[in-house]
Amino acid sequence: MKAYHITSPTGLSALRPVELPEPSPATGQVIVHVRATSLNYRDHMVITGTYGKLHGPLVPLSDGAGEIISVGPSVERWRVGDRVVGLFFQKWATGPLPADAFQHALGHSLPGMLAQYVALPENGVVAIPGHLSFEEAATLPCAAVTAWNALVTRGNIAADETVVLLGTGGVSIFALQIAKMHGARVIITSSSDEKLARARELGADETINYRTTPDWEKAVLDLTDGAGAEHVIEVGGHDTFPKSLYAAAVNGTVYVIGGVGGGFTAEAPLRAFIVRNVSVRGIAVGSRNMHEAMNRAITRNQLKPVVDRVFPFSAAAEACQHLQNGAHFGKVVITI
Amino acid sequence: MKAYHITSPTGLSALRPVELPEPSPATGQVIVHVRATSLNYRDHMVITGTYGKLHGPLVPLSDGAGEIISVGPSVERWRVGDRVVGLFFQKWATGPLPADAFQHALGHSLPGMLAQYVALPENGVVAIPGHLSFEEAATLPCAAVTAWNALVTRGNIAADETVVLLGTGGVSIFALQIAKMHGARVIITSSSDEKLARARELGADETINYRTTPDWEKAVLDLTDGAGAEHVIEVGGHDTFPKSLYAAAVNGTVYVIGGVGGGFTAEAPLRAFIVRNVSVRGIAVGSRNMHEAMNRAITRNQLKPVVDRVFPFSAAAEACQHLQNGAHFGKVVITI
Amino acid sequence: MKAYHITSPTGLSALRPVELPEPSPATGQVIVHVRATSLNYRDHMVITGTYGKLHGPLVPLSDGAGEIISVGPSVERWRVGDRVVGLFFQKWATGPLPADAFQHALGHSLPGMLAQYVALPENGVVAIPGHLSFEEAATLPCAAVTAWNALVTRGNIAADETVVLLGTGGVSIFALQIAKMHGARVIITSSSDEKLARARELGADETINYRTTPDWEKAVLDLTDGAGAEHVIEVGGHDTFPKSLYAAAVNGTVYVIGGVGGGFTAEAPLRAFIVRNVSVRGIAVGSRNMHEAMNRAITRNQLKPVVDRVFPFSAAAEACQHLQNGAHFGKVVITI
Amino acid sequence: MKAYHITSPTGLSALRPVELPEPSPATGQVIVHVRATSLNYRDHMVITGTYGKLHGPLVPLSDGAGEIISVGPSVERWRVGDRVVGLFFQKWATGPLPADAFQHALGHSLPGMLAQYVALPENGVVAIPGHLSFEEAATLPCAAVTAWNALVTRGNIAADETVVLLGTGGVSIFALQIAKMHGARVIITSSSDEKLARARELGADETINYRTTPDWEKAVLDLTDGAGAEHVIEVGGHDTFPKSLYAAAVNGTVYVIGGVGGGFTAEAPLRAFIVRNVSVRGIAVGSRNMHEAMNRAITRNQLKPVVDRVFPFSAAAEACQHLQNGAHFGKVVITI
Repeated sequence: MKAYHITSPTGLSALRPVELPEPSPATGQVIVHVRATSLNYRDHMVITGTYGKLHGPLVPLSDGAGEIISVGPSVERWRVGDRVVGLFFQKWATGPLPADAFQHALGHSLPGMLAQYVALPENGVVAIPGHLSFEEAATLPCAAVTAWNALVTRGNIAADETVVLLGTGGVSIFALQIAKMHGARVIITSSSDEKLARARELGADETINYRTTPDWEKAVLDLTDGAGAEHVIEVGGHDTFPKSLYAAAVNGTVYVIGGVGGGFTAEAPLRAFIVRNVSVRGIAVGSRNMHEAMNRAITRNQLKPVVDRVFPFSAAAEACQHLQNGAHFGKVVITI
Repeated sequence: MKAYHITSPTGLSALRPVELPEPSPATGQVIVHVRATSLNYRDHMVITGTYGKLHGPLVPLSDGAGEIISVGPSVERWRVGDRVVGLFFQKWATGPLPADAFQHALGHSLPGMLAQYVALPENGVVAIPGHLSFEEAATLPCAAVTAWNALVTRGNIAADETVVLLGTGGVSIFALQIAKMHGARVIITSSSDEKLARARELGADETINYRTTPDWEKAVLDLTDGAGAEHVIEVGGHDTFPKSLYAAAVNGTVYVIGGVGGGFTAEAPLRAFIVRNVSVRGIAVGSRNMHEAMNRAITRNQLKPVVDRVFPFSAAAEACQHLQNGAHFGKVVITI
Repeated sequence: MKAYHITSPTGLSALRPVELPEPSPATGQVIVHVRATSLNYRDHMVITGTYGKLHGPLVPLSDGAGEIISVGPSVERWRVGDRVVGLFFQKWATGPLPADAFQHALGHSLPGMLAQYVALPENGVVAIPGHLSFEEAATLPCAAVTAWNALVTRGNIAADETVVLLGTGGVSIFALQIAKMHGARVIITSSSDEKLARARELGADETINYRTTPDWEKAVLDLTDGAGAEHVIEVGGHDTFPKSLYAAAVNGTVYVIGGVGGGFTAEAPLRAFIVRNVSVRGIAVGSRNMHEAMNRAITRNQLKPVVDRVFPFSAAAEACQHLQNGAHFGKVVITI
Repeated sequence: MKAYHITSPTGLSALRPVELPEPSPATGQVIVHVRATSLNYRDHMVITGTYGKLHGPLVPLSDGAGEIISVGPSVERWRVGDRVVGLFFQKWATGPLPADAFQHALGHSLPGMLAQYVALPENGVVAIPGHLSFEEAATLPCAAVTAWNALVTRGNIAADETVVLLGTGGVSIFALQIAKMHGARVIITSSSDEKLARARELGADETINYRTTPDWEKAVLDLTDGAGAEHVIEVGGHDTFPKSLYAAAVNGTVYVIGGVGGGFTAEAPLRAFIVRNVSVRGIAVGSRNMHEAMNRAITRNQLKPVVDRVFPFSAAAEACQHLQNGAHFGKVVITI
């Protein structure tokens, strides 16, 4: 079968097409014929070598959607033909994050989804909402569950609250859709007025161009009568973290999710924590329970993930390059 | 000024029009020219003598909306012309329910809103959302805040969850609107197919006629693949409480709010609590903070309260009779 | 091996000694040589036929402690010689109660611990705190975890709060010890002054003899300056449930755990819920995570379970009779 | 009356004794004859000019205990002779931190307690637990309430959990006592073995000398089998914040309270948030409700604050110098 491997992650060229033996299902496993995958910034980090060490060649990508084509002995939950996605964390079913969760994550510790066929335990996949295509479903496991975990599971978002979103990448656009699904107010930033216009079409209430308004945190305070936002989805890291703290309301929360802007070390102005009683919470994707809850909400509200662009399997490196360029709005998909 | 008094609460005839001296504002008080009031089942209980003792003649009704026509010394929050409603609990600003809250509730311990002019402390009123008329705003203080407190403040309702509503009275219809505002699924019961059709127009996902389906709790289980509902807004009391417990999901919550159906003593099947880990929570309207949060959500989402029928001041007793008949859908309003 | 069976649960005589084949460990299983078991009111209900239907002969009792004498293939967590107890719920590891938890509970849906040897999945047992004997450890799985779940996991008990305990059975005495471990105030009831004196020795701050003070809920209010208790551990059911509601503080919680006094149907005075904002929460024992957290606390604070009396294996029926008589203080143990 | 003033806060010499007119009580006020005050690091910052601007001469210090010697009109809660402390936040009664809380804080925005007599609103003081002297009670308003807010109100500390404390200043020693009151495990650091020995006498389970073990966060992991601590009370700021993050358990919380070590700007290693799901919460002292709850716990458990040293009124500057030297263990008190 076709797949990609990373052996020595030193740049996008590390992504090499390979021919691998087709897997067959062990006890409790299903074989998924992967039809579409999606890219996350983490995948970019894995491929370019900034995420962590590899222990031999790795099939990358945490997110993939497909069809079950065979089931191993004792599998009870699935039948051939079921449409599923793989869970980011293969062994986090419910409750708080297990200490060893990252040792069972697709696309880094475990082989990922950029392959024609993958073998997963029956509890490592979840059903795809009926109204979604494989391309759409492939966007869910990492970015959408992360946004859901932050805003809904941990954030208990409600219609009286305001959410600040940084940029228009995968997590931010899902957070926009999930926040609007709960009646909340959304303020979103971007360097592109065109992207901000598209965000408005998706329901964003307020937009800030951070190129023309570099002190966007002050703009957030202005837009909220000085109060700030109850929720800030912090995907930027170094360049945005201190501003995110200042954009948060008294008793508000900043969810630390990524480091797209300048990396994962940031300056923390501690008095901003104390005098405004702000919390910062790390968010590590989410559990199967969260994914399933999100699916119910997506189905009921007929949410459609925003697919920025679909690349063919042969153009996986170009897809990564597209993500690296930051020109996308929503999710970048690779079909298989 | 015109007002109504109850002296001896023994039935709707206890409601007597009276002429009272017009109030003038003490330090920290505002005078509200009441333009509209709304009825709650509690008012009916107060008037008919099933709510509690009176200590002398009482102006009834907790809910009223109007305009500030004068402000006393040291008032800082309001100006003449501001449109406000009175808070149900005059001294519950934030945090959990104070032990003495009911000693400062409008329309029973304190004089209520069924009068042309009322004097209230400046912290005893909140602003009316701009898009609402006085008639619409008058429906908020008791029923809407109760629904908000249950589903949002205590319930943290989310779009993956299901809410069961009993009947189409004030609290239930607000709960329907608030649940849909948060993307949740709503199952509602009524004895009238016509009311159920109207509930569907407001967004209800599923309807159950409890006359033709007396075992409506089983219908709830059927509609949820046996899972039950995460939230049940229990307004019925004696006749519905045990069924509400059975309609709740494992780890679900039944919010005890009223006793419209048969009174406030019910049978509690305790094993239903234990084996399904169900919680029952009493809900006592809500705080000023909750009311203000709800107002933000109402404004942002342009929610319009459902006014069943508007009665003139002179027909207050007819309005109560209309409520007693149970023929209403949403809120019954009396203008002044 | 020796064991007991119930075939037709119609009374304590239903408990019959049998000789059964010794189990051997399947993949992922361990064999526990059971050295001590303990009795819960639920076991009494199972044996006397008031708990639920049996599907064939059943080895009763959820609680047992012993030593691992062999491990099956692929077992990773345990070695021969490890001292363990069985988990009440074999498949509730973490997070909220699973809907199917009771289908995997020892001593009713699954065979129980009143046998010389039992085979359990490796995740179905937890280690015994080092300072406890088998007799002491056998008291933990049902009663202690229930008390921990109520007061700590769900109740977040703190040193400023008051707990009301009904009687001196297993759950109440563990709740007493756990409450005192967290610095809280304990008020306990009993019909025996001698038992109340023993409760005082264990740290109870206040005692009420409910025989001489039948309105014990009023005594609770007196002892708390009218405030009531933040936590009431409701093990009594029919006879005590309404009183427990009245003994609860505004915003307090009644944990529904049992029906020792008059059964599982009780009258619910709904206005007590509403005007005092009281919550009632069903508690169904607890998860492995809760059990392990409790074990850490027990070890650190060197808590010793209170063993009322130890019966030999041959006297299992007498042990049940002793429990039925209600003469015990703490836990009744049967050695094997 | 005698008092101290700061006019130009540029160092400890800024603290100048002055003679001020004795206050008399306005409506709703009480006059407290201050008998003892205590120092917090914040007071040191105020006096040395690193806390914030002054608007004219200021009486410093947030913490003071004394006796009510007169009450103004309409005061209901207090009588002459009542023993009270002032609340750090004069207008935070209950619920979450109000946005304007710091505008009503003693000893900076409002005049403080380093004076013979102070006038405070009747809701601005709380009773002193009966077993405490004025010197002991004067230590409570800032440091003890901060520790209580972090560990109990927000942290829901329980007996299965571990707390890490940095140094032996006021907040840390109260946190030690409060943690032990709830049965938790305490790991404490200091540069002095003598102080660590004293901490052990107070119940600390583990001690780390951070001079001999600069990587104390690794020592915390070693002492917890690699798990880390559920709660870290972060008083150090710049020098300790990143280490505190690494010492926290998966799903643990770091409470940001101070910047004793190197100031309030720190480096935040964001991946430590994400992969371990750690939360950082700012803590701003606490509300009257928290103070009252803490008092109940202190009374019930007969907790005695640890007074390091008592200075006479005339030696206020020496007391501040003593705090600055960092030689103290617990709280530094100034009598009046």
